[in-house]
Amino acid sequence: MSAASSGLTSERIVEAGQFLRSHIRLTPVEPSPLLSAKAGVPVWLKLENLQVTGSFKIRGALFRLSRLSPRQRKAGIATCSAGNHGKAVAYAARLLKLLAVITVPETVDAAKHRAMIELGAKVIRSRHQGYDDTEKWARRQAQRTGHPFVSPFDDWDIMAGNGGTLAEEVLEQVPQARTFLLPVGGGGLAAGFAFAARQRLDKARIIGCQLAASPGLKLSLQRNEAVTRLPPAETVAGGIEGGLGRMTFEVLRSRMNVQDVALLSEEEISHAFAWMLDHHQYLIEPSAAVTVAALLSGKAGRLETPAVAVLSGRNVALETVRRLLRSQ
Amino acid sequence: MSAASSGLTSERIVEAGQFLRSHIRLTPVEPSPLLSAKAGVPVWLKLENLQVTGSFKIRGALFRLSRLSPRQRKAGIATCSAGNHGKAVAYAARLLKLLAVITVPETVDAAKHRAMIELGAKVIRSRHQGYDDTEKWARRQAQRTGHPFVSPFDDWDIMAGNGGTLAEEVLEQVPQARTFLLPVGGGGLAAGFAFAARQRLDKARIIGCQLAASPGLKLSLQRNEAVTRLPPAETVAGGIEGGLGRMTFEVLRSRMNVQDVALLSEEEISHAFAWMLDHHQYLIEPSAAVTVAALLSGKAGRLETPAVAVLSGRNVALETVRRLLRSQ
Repeated sequence: MSAASSGLTSERIVEAGQFLRSHIRLTPVEPSPLLSAKAGVPVWLKLENLQVTGSFKIRGALFRLSRLSPRQRKAGIATCSAGNHGKAVAYAARLLKLLAVITVPETVDAAKHRAMIELGAKVIRSRHQGYDDTEKWARRQAQRTGHPFVSPFDDWDIMAGNGGTLAEEVLEQVPQARTFLLPVGGGGLAAGFAFAARQRLDKARIIGCQLAASPGLKLSLQRNEAVTRLPPAETVAGGIEGGLGRMTFEVLRSRMNVQDVALLSEEEISHAFAWMLDHHQYLIEPSAAVTVAALLSGKAGRLETPAVAVLSGRNVALETVRRLLRSQ
Repeated sequence: MSAASSGLTSERIVEAGQFLRSHIRLTPVEPSPLLSAKAGVPVWLKLENLQVTGSFKIRGALFRLSRLSPRQRKAGIATCSAGNHGKAVAYAARLLKLLAVITVPETVDAAKHRAMIELGAKVIRSRHQGYDDTEKWARRQAQRTGHPFVSPFDDWDIMAGNGGTLAEEVLEQVPQARTFLLPVGGGGLAAGFAFAARQRLDKARIIGCQLAASPGLKLSLQRNEAVTRLPPAETVAGGIEGGLGRMTFEVLRSRMNVQDVALLSEEEISHAFAWMLDHHQYLIEPSAAVTVAALLSGKAGRLETPAVAVLSGRNVALETVRRLLRSQ
């Protein structure tokens, strides 16, 4: 085990799961007859879009903030987020009664932005468009104010909470599944999930679903080094825009294959978004639609074992919903 | 206790709840800070829109069909539905391996219609527009074919399953609630819910939410007799169109006040539908939006105790979603 991945352990994931149990929803899985027919194997949807705060990010945020020292808790923390991590941190901070300073890109989704403010967080809207530039700026601000900076993905507690506990649930709910489709941005969900799934299963196949315009994981696996910064991409799926984490790549490099990254276009994402409303009647956000898009477009490749597609969230502004439906 | 209501008992509700436990989801409740601020009391949403088959109707349908005699199970059953009951019956019939013949109005929602067919039911689309005329015709057909007719509301098992088990859950999840907002069409949900809530609580207030164009409960309480047939109403909320049941009225007449029926316009329903997407990020169907509409419009009247608004379902065609969002 590499030194860098040594912080992600089964014990940490079990601890996260036990802590979270009383705070979050055990979201259901639902079979998808149409996606199953399309893929040629049984496909379930993990409905993490129904999670408290509207996304899986509450898992990592709540676990991470619960482990702050009394001194850190008193001083508060800083973070950066395209939205879901920020909303989750705002929710956790209110629960744990601490100050959260959340920096967001200028292009933040309006629903996510409003939700963080309503939850009582201090939200700073940066002048940067992409996630990577925003984080760089947010880290400098945090250094200045002295708040510890909590990464939305490059953090063992976040990986254990976001991806690890989710994988444990999915493996329990669909024990026959061996293929797992996950949205990938910074890689926190994927790293925690891949780690936990590979601990428990010999033959777990992880399919990472990314924006064609922001393929951080694909590039990292191709170059065998973490591509942590990418130019801002104009996208409806801001939640998965930006480069991969350094620590998440250390976990993912040995657990994923480069051909198992599907790159989705804006058009494929819009279509999958509308398809979900039409066929399962759930609102999901565009960043979450990539896993469905990978199946509908065939870009997930040939599946050989029962599969679970993770639907990661539902936070999307009504104006974006209107726009996406007009385009479909 | 009147003879007519003697079939609805606590024992029947407990039995339904025990049977259903392993077949359906325990749907979450979610606080609504904005509706709470509006109402002046804490308001929770009961997210029955997240139920299996997309509505609470699976509760009654599954319990009812599980109690058929072996002979009835072999012959199959007939029913009539604007959609949700039909989808639930189709799902239950597939699970229990029996034939279901489901008659629907000509104006049936496209998503509901397709779902019933995909689940393997025999679906007959009538030439009638409203629910009441459709049911009259469906009952004649059932007599001809010899299939026992299962009413979507005027049936003790359906009331116990749909409304009774839902009330038991809600009272467990929000023990401080004393006000309950429910959508009312034929009255199966309301009758079962009101019965169970009044058994357990001294001061339960039930607010029935109806279409202004199809106010069966309001008229029944005013006239003190069941108004079981109403002219077809053109509405986006077909799930609650039509008259009240005779048996459901026997239960409701002593448990509800005429001033506790809120009548909602199409415009108010469209607004509440979009509001839910915007503020809680759930797709609900227009029939389910009446409870939110009653709060947003103020038509629920002044609330004095903590309240739960039931969101009854999410089955709505994508084309209707587009239309509703264009109008908002």
